[in-house]
Amino acid sequence: MKYPNSINKTYTKINVSHSNRGMNLEDMLNKSNKYYLDNDMAVIYKKPTPIGIVDVSYNDHHKVIKKAYFKEQSTLDYNGLYKGKYIEFDAKETLSKTSFPLSNIHEHQTKQIRAVIKHQGIAFLLIKMNEKYFILTGEDYLSFIDNNDRKSIPYSYIEEKGYIVEEKYNPPLDYLKGLENIYYKGE
Amino acid sequence: MKYPNSINKTYTKINVSHSNRGMNLEDMLNKSNKYYLDNDMAVIYKKPTPIGIVDVSYNDHHKVIKKAYFKEQSTLDYNGLYKGKYIEFDAKETLSKTSFPLSNIHEHQTKQIRAVIKHQGIAFLLIKMNEKYFILTGEDYLSFIDNNDRKSIPYSYIEEKGYIVEEKYNPPLDYLKGLENIYYKGE
Repeated sequence: MKYPNSINKTYTKINVSHSNRGMNLEDMLNKSNKYYLDNDMAVIYKKPTPIGIVDVSYNDHHKVIKKAYFKEQSTLDYNGLYKGKYIEFDAKETLSKTSFPLSNIHEHQTKQIRAVIKHQGIAFLLIKMNEKYFILTGEDYLSFIDNNDRKSIPYSYIEEKGYIVEEKYNPPLDYLKGLENIYYKGE
Repeated sequence: MKYPNSINKTYTKINVSHSNRGMNLEDMLNKSNKYYLDNDMAVIYKKPTPIGIVDVSYNDHHKVIKKAYFKEQSTLDYNGLYKGKYIEFDAKETLSKTSFPLSNIHEHQTKQIRAVIKHQGIAFLLIKMNEKYFILTGEDYLSFIDNNDRKSIPYSYIEEKGYIVEEKYNPPLDYLKGLENIYYKGE
């Protein structure tokens, strides 16, 4: 009764954090993509993890994989379509507070980012760092690696160039709002 | 020496058919997509088959899948980017000479075709039938199923509405050429 505003704020905060508690970055993005799809806003999916199958058997006419191994994705993990534009991105996180290690991004992923941009698509990285979520455009990422010999991107570069994506209940990460500001201005 | 033109033609024909002999539709499309990628024409991939993993073990620090099963793809099998436009399609074939059974196309795939078109992407089916290859646009496919109660599409409809994709050595199926005629006219 004494501090209704604070109590309300605290209540809301607890509620929000509880709802997405335990969700990792991938869960948050899958939930966001489902929200976009269910609300007919965009058509974006995580690609299945590629595997190499070694052995398959049949169980009551159902194929069962008995032995397989994980392969590397040739592309970024997420792709799809938003307002007539091709979108492709990958989600990355680091526990480092000062710099993002470039070893997180494989060479074929960098190649893919270049190819998508060249063919007039949107490519970006969604980076979790210091408990914040950033969109780093493919253009800003390439500009850094093409002009630096460093093995990591300083946090200051990500803070300066990146676009903050707010965490909320649903969609947990509303990155389309970020893309609107970057790529769809005036549309 | 007597019929140099015919001989040349015959030679070319044998060469062509030998090179792609034994390739199924998926192989032909994967080879075509690799050709487009290597020649920097488009960025189009087949999505990996989704699996549900039941059991994983570790072998010398390498993860090995010990039990898994195949799941259904939520989208069409192929997607990517060509000249700034989002492309998504599926490859289908039937041995029937008279009609294409609609049981080949799952309900979620039809839903996906609608969603891609709604969000201004290009969706189509690449159909192999009577030893020919056709692009049937998502629009023509939807127009058929929305206006018919039939359980199959007559071959005459596919011949009338579809765009023939020629088989050649490389790319084995140059479907981008077909898309050019349908979606990129005057660009």
